[in-house]
Amino acid sequence: MRAVTFHAAGDVRVVDKPEPELRDPGEALIRIRATGICGSDLHIYHGRIEIEPGFTIGHEYVAEVVEAGAAVRSVAVGDRVVGGFQTACGTCWLCHRGLFHKCDRSRTFGHGALLGSLDGTQADLAVVPDANLTLRRVPDGLSDDVALFAGDVMATGYHAATAVVPGDSVVVLGLGPVGLCAVQAALVAGAAQVIAVDTVASRLETARSFGAIPVHLTEQSPRDEVKRLTERRGAQLVVEAVGSPQALDLAVRLAAKCGTVNLIGVHAAPAEVHLGLAWIKSLTIAAGHANVLGHIDAVLGLLSTGRLDPRPLVTHHMALDQAAEAYALYDRREALKIVLTP
Amino acid sequence: MRAVTFHAAGDVRVVDKPEPELRDPGEALIRIRATGICGSDLHIYHGRIEIEPGFTIGHEYVAEVVEAGAAVRSVAVGDRVVGGFQTACGTCWLCHRGLFHKCDRSRTFGHGALLGSLDGTQADLAVVPDANLTLRRVPDGLSDDVALFAGDVMATGYHAATAVVPGDSVVVLGLGPVGLCAVQAALVAGAAQVIAVDTVASRLETARSFGAIPVHLTEQSPRDEVKRLTERRGAQLVVEAVGSPQALDLAVRLAAKCGTVNLIGVHAAPAEVHLGLAWIKSLTIAAGHANVLGHIDAVLGLLSTGRLDPRPLVTHHMALDQAAEAYALYDRREALKIVLTP
Amino acid sequence: MRAVTFHAAGDVRVVDKPEPELRDPGEALIRIRATGICGSDLHIYHGRIEIEPGFTIGHEYVAEVVEAGAAVRSVAVGDRVVGGFQTACGTCWLCHRGLFHKCDRSRTFGHGALLGSLDGTQADLAVVPDANLTLRRVPDGLSDDVALFAGDVMATGYHAATAVVPGDSVVVLGLGPVGLCAVQAALVAGAAQVIAVDTVASRLETARSFGAIPVHLTEQSPRDEVKRLTERRGAQLVVEAVGSPQALDLAVRLAAKCGTVNLIGVHAAPAEVHLGLAWIKSLTIAAGHANVLGHIDAVLGLLSTGRLDPRPLVTHHMALDQAAEAYALYDRREALKIVLTP
Amino acid sequence: MRAVTFHAAGDVRVVDKPEPELRDPGEALIRIRATGICGSDLHIYHGRIEIEPGFTIGHEYVAEVVEAGAAVRSVAVGDRVVGGFQTACGTCWLCHRGLFHKCDRSRTFGHGALLGSLDGTQADLAVVPDANLTLRRVPDGLSDDVALFAGDVMATGYHAATAVVPGDSVVVLGLGPVGLCAVQAALVAGAAQVIAVDTVASRLETARSFGAIPVHLTEQSPRDEVKRLTERRGAQLVVEAVGSPQALDLAVRLAAKCGTVNLIGVHAAPAEVHLGLAWIKSLTIAAGHANVLGHIDAVLGLLSTGRLDPRPLVTHHMALDQAAEAYALYDRREALKIVLTP
Repeated sequence: MRAVTFHAAGDVRVVDKPEPELRDPGEALIRIRATGICGSDLHIYHGRIEIEPGFTIGHEYVAEVVEAGAAVRSVAVGDRVVGGFQTACGTCWLCHRGLFHKCDRSRTFGHGALLGSLDGTQADLAVVPDANLTLRRVPDGLSDDVALFAGDVMATGYHAATAVVPGDSVVVLGLGPVGLCAVQAALVAGAAQVIAVDTVASRLETARSFGAIPVHLTEQSPRDEVKRLTERRGAQLVVEAVGSPQALDLAVRLAAKCGTVNLIGVHAAPAEVHLGLAWIKSLTIAAGHANVLGHIDAVLGLLSTGRLDPRPLVTHHMALDQAAEAYALYDRREALKIVLTP
Repeated sequence: MRAVTFHAAGDVRVVDKPEPELRDPGEALIRIRATGICGSDLHIYHGRIEIEPGFTIGHEYVAEVVEAGAAVRSVAVGDRVVGGFQTACGTCWLCHRGLFHKCDRSRTFGHGALLGSLDGTQADLAVVPDANLTLRRVPDGLSDDVALFAGDVMATGYHAATAVVPGDSVVVLGLGPVGLCAVQAALVAGAAQVIAVDTVASRLETARSFGAIPVHLTEQSPRDEVKRLTERRGAQLVVEAVGSPQALDLAVRLAAKCGTVNLIGVHAAPAEVHLGLAWIKSLTIAAGHANVLGHIDAVLGLLSTGRLDPRPLVTHHMALDQAAEAYALYDRREALKIVLTP
Repeated sequence: MRAVTFHAAGDVRVVDKPEPELRDPGEALIRIRATGICGSDLHIYHGRIEIEPGFTIGHEYVAEVVEAGAAVRSVAVGDRVVGGFQTACGTCWLCHRGLFHKCDRSRTFGHGALLGSLDGTQADLAVVPDANLTLRRVPDGLSDDVALFAGDVMATGYHAATAVVPGDSVVVLGLGPVGLCAVQAALVAGAAQVIAVDTVASRLETARSFGAIPVHLTEQSPRDEVKRLTERRGAQLVVEAVGSPQALDLAVRLAAKCGTVNLIGVHAAPAEVHLGLAWIKSLTIAAGHANVLGHIDAVLGLLSTGRLDPRPLVTHHMALDQAAEAYALYDRREALKIVLTP
Repeated sequence: MRAVTFHAAGDVRVVDKPEPELRDPGEALIRIRATGICGSDLHIYHGRIEIEPGFTIGHEYVAEVVEAGAAVRSVAVGDRVVGGFQTACGTCWLCHRGLFHKCDRSRTFGHGALLGSLDGTQADLAVVPDANLTLRRVPDGLSDDVALFAGDVMATGYHAATAVVPGDSVVVLGLGPVGLCAVQAALVAGAAQVIAVDTVASRLETARSFGAIPVHLTEQSPRDEVKRLTERRGAQLVVEAVGSPQALDLAVRLAAKCGTVNLIGVHAAPAEVHLGLAWIKSLTIAAGHANVLGHIDAVLGLLSTGRLDPRPLVTHHMALDQAAEAYALYDRREALKIVLTP
C-alpha cells in the first residue's frame, strides 16, 4: 500500500509499504477515504518534532472499516468512520473520568516512537488500536470533508469554547484552522460576540464570514477594540490559538476579571507569564490540547445539522500521491486545510 | 396619570390615578415607554389569579428614570431602562447566591396583595423598589420592543435552556412566547437541533423560521419524530412550556436517559407524574419560574448583538388607552405579544 | 460450584452448578471472596422482581481474578477486585459521556432475564462481562468487608450526595444501608449538617454516630426540626432513600427554595407529586439509581483513607452455605448488611 | 476613639482619633469586639504595601452594629456581625454574577488610598460601606474568635478548595493561616487525603492534627511523597498558599494530569511558569484572592456546626492597646493568629 512518510526536514515521500495486519482483538483495519494535513504535521515536516525516517505520518482521517477485531463493538466492517488523532483505551483511571486525551495508553497517529509508534493515516490503510473508543460511525449525509474535522480540528475548537456561558464576549487569538473552528464553536456555544484577531486579511475575512468581529493584530489595537466592544470589561473567554508567549501575554490583558484564558495553542517551554495581572484579575488559565474523543459525538451532531460548518476551511483537495507537493504548499501558508484522497 | 386596572374577569380599564412618589432611598420612579401584555396577565384577566379591583396591572416594561432615591446607583435619572417583572433586594441569603427569583423580599409588579402589593407597569409612571437589582440600563441601539423581552419572556427562555450542552438535542413543548423564546435560547446555547411541538400552524411556522424542526402535536407523533431525529435516544433537554400534566407526561417520555425536563410552564397543583419512567431513565426534573434578574445582563448582550431576536413575536403595537381592546384581542389568541405605548 | 439460587418467594437454596467458562475476550472469571445481601435481593426474595427459578442471585462482591480474556487490561489474574452490581461496556454513546449506569449493553448480576441474564455473585465463581469497566483492583490494606461497599451501597450514597455544596444542610429520609451511606457521603462532601430521618431507633443511633442529627419520623416533626435547624430555609438537598410517594412528598416539603430532591429510593410506578409546591420552590428533582462505575474510584479512595467507613453497617458474617438462613434473617429486618463468605 | 495606625516600616501606633460618622444610607457604624492581625497587615507593616502615614489599619473584625443607615436591611442595630475584609456593592455587573471580590466599587479596610481609602478595623469603631453585602449576623453560639475567620482567612481556605471533588487527593503548599484553613476546607469538601507541605515543624504538626499528611519541604521529597500517596498520579488539586515562583513551579509538578493549581498565595509580579509542563498535563491554573463574600454564609454554617474549626490557629489574645507589641511578635513569626480586643 502507499504511505506518506517523513525522511528529513522538508522531505516527505509517498512510498510503498506492506499492508498492515491486526494483532489485537481491540483493533480495526481501516481503508482511508480522506486524510488531512494539519499544523502539527508541519512541526514534523520542519523537523521540530523528531520522528524516525520512513515513519508514516498523518492523523486526520475518514475511512471505511475493512476488518474488526473480536472485541470491537462500536463500529463494524463496512462502516464509514472518523476517529480521533490519538487513541484512548477507555479503561484507565483517566478514561473512566472521560479525560480521554490523557489516557494512560494513548497513542497518536503518525508521530513516531515519541507518541506510541503508531503508523499514520496518510496511507491507503491504517490500523486503529482501541477502536471502540477511537472510532465513530459517520452520520449519513455528512461528507468526508466535513466529518474529517470531527477527529481533530473542530473538536479542538469545541474544546477551546467549553467555558462559554451564553451571553459572553469571546476573543480568539490566531485564525489558523483551530482558531477559525474556535470562532464557530464559541458562537455555537452562545457567545454574544466573538472578536477574532490575526494579521492575515483573508483569515480575518473568513472569521467575519463566520459571524466574528475581525480585528487586525497590528493595524488595530486589540486592547482598544476589546474594551470598546465590552464596555471596558474585557472578554469572559480568550482562546489563545497561537502558542506563543506574546499571544499568552495579550490574552491575559484582554481577559475580563474572573475570565478564562484557554491555551489551546501549543506551549512546549517555560515562559514568563504576567502572573501579577492574572492574579489581580482572578483569571483561570486552562492549558493543554483538546479532549477530542470526549467531544466527538457532540461535534458530529453539530456538523450533521450544519450548526458547525468547516467547509470554508477546506481550500485544497489533492491526491495522496501529491503529498510532497501538498506539504510544500501548506508550508508556504497558501492553504488552510488540504484534504488528501488515496 | 393613566393606569390599566383590573376590575373583574374580562374587565380591565384605563383609569386616572395620582402620580406615585418615592418613599425609600432604594426606589426609582420611571416613566413607561413601552409595556407588554403577558400570558400571566391573562390569568389575572380571567380572574384565575385574584387581585384587588382597581389594582394597576402589567409587569413588562421599558422606561425612563425620572427620579432616583439616594441609594440607587446602578441607574441614573434620564437612563432608558428595562427591569425584571419581579424585584430582588440583593441582600438576602438567596440573593447572595444569585437566586434572585426566590428573593425573600421580592415583589411582583401588577399582581396585587398576593405578590407584594406593587402597582403594575401598564401606566404612565411606576415606582421600582430595589432599583439597583431590578433595573438595567438598555444598551444603545436596542429598540424598546426588543429590550422589553429581557425583563421577562426572553430571560425565561434563556433560563429554560441553561441545561443545554452544545451538541444536545432539545425539545420545546408549547410555542407561546415563552416556548418560542426557548427555541431561540436553546439554539444560541448550542443545541444541535431543536424540535418544536405545538398544535398551531402559525406558531410551528415561527419556530421553523427560528431554526427549529416543527412537529405537530396531534397530526404527527412527537415520540416517533423525536426517536427518528435522535437515533432513538430522545432529547437531552425537554422544555415543558405548557404547564399541564399532559405536557409533563409527554416531556418525560421524550427525554433521553439522563436527560433533563425543565418545567418552565406554570404548575400550581399536585399532578401524577410517571415517576417509574423518570426513575428508570434517570431524569432530572427542574421546576419553577425563571431567574430573570440572574440572566438579564446575558440576555441584553445577546439581544444587542442580534443573536436573540424576539421581533417576530411582536405582533401588535397599541396605545395604552386601548388596553381593554388589547386584552380582548390577546384573549382571543390573535396575538403573540402586544406592546402598549403610553 | 455452589450457587445461591432463587426458586420461589421465600425460597432460596444453595445448589451445585457447573463451573462457568469465559466466552468473550472482554470477560473475566472471578472467585468470590465475599458477597453481600442487598435490599434489592429482598425484592427478588419476595417475588416482587420476577426471575427464573434456579437463577443464581447476588450482585455485591469482592473476588479474585482467576482468568482474564485477551481484551481485559484493567485487572489481571490474581488481583483482588471489586466490581459494579451492573456491567458497562465503556464504548456506547452513554458510556462515552460517563453515564455508565445507563449503558446500552449493561447487564445486572443476579436479576434473571429481566436485566441481562447474568448469573449472580452469591456463588463460588462468577463471570464478569466487560471486565475492563466493571472491575477495579482493591487497594492494599482495604478489607473485603469495606471494599464490598464500593460496588453498590456506598457508591449509591456517594451518588445521592453529588449535589452537595460545602456548607449545605442535607436531609436523608430513610436509614437503611443506602440512607446511612448517604449520611456519610453527604458529610464527606461538605454538608454543614445532615438531618437523618427514620422510625427505627437503632438506625437513628447509627446515623447519630456518623455525625448526623437524628429525627424520628413520627415521634418528632421532621418539618419543625428542619425549619429549626436551618433558620426556616429548609435543606439544600433532600435524599429520599425510601422509594415511596409519602417519602417523596415529605422530601418536597423539607427542601429549601432552589434545593434538590434526590430520589435514590426506587420508584417503579406513577405517583402524585406536589408539583405546585415543587414549582413555587424552584426545586430540582433527580431520579434514578446510582452511577456506581462512575463513582467507584472516588469511593475506593475515600474508603482507603477511612473518610468513608461502612464497617458499622456490617452486622452479620455468615457462610455462603447459610444463605437461606441469611435471607430469612435479613427479611426479618434483623440485619443491616450480611456478608456471605464462600 | 483608639485606632491602630501605620507610620513607617515597623512603626504602628495606637492613636486617638475622632469617632467616625455615617454619610451614606448604605453604611453601618460598628463597635469592634475582636480584630485580627493578618499576613497582609504584615506587608503594610514592612512597608511593602505603601499607605499614608497615620492611616488606620486592620481588616478582620467581629463587631456590634451601633448605627445603621436607612438603606441597611441585612443587619440591625445591636446585631453581632462579621464582615468581609473588602466591601461589595451588590449592584454592579460583577456583583450580579456573584463575583463580589471583583466588585467595581469594592474598598478594602485598612489599605489606604491604594484600595479605596477605607479606615481599618483595628480600632474602637469603624464605618462599613455597603453594609448589606459586606456584613453578616454571627449565628448564636459562635464565639468572636471563630466568627472572625469567616471574614477573611477561612473563607479564603474555602475558596482555595472549591475545585475539590469528593475522593480527590489535594496538596497544600505553605501552612500559614490560609494554608491551614485550606487543609480544613479541602477535607470538608471531600478530599480523600490532604498532603500538607511546609518547613516549620509546628505548622506541619498542626496540619497533621487537622487530618492532613505532613510532608517537610526540604527534609522530605514532596514529589516522591505525592507520587507514593497517589499511585504516581499526582494531586487533583494543588493549593499554592505561598505566593512565590518556586511554590508555583512545585505546584505544577505535583499536580495530576487535568488537575487544578489554585494560586491563593499572592502573586504581584510576572514570573516564569513551566508552561510546557502545564500544557502537557492539561492543567487549570486559577489565580486571585478569595471571593470571601460569596462564601461567607457557607463558611459561617460550617463554623457553626464545628465542621470547620480555626480555634487551634488562634495562638494569642492581646489588647488593642498592645498593637505595636502584637505586630512585632507576629513579625517574628511567633504567632499564627493574634486576636486584638479593644
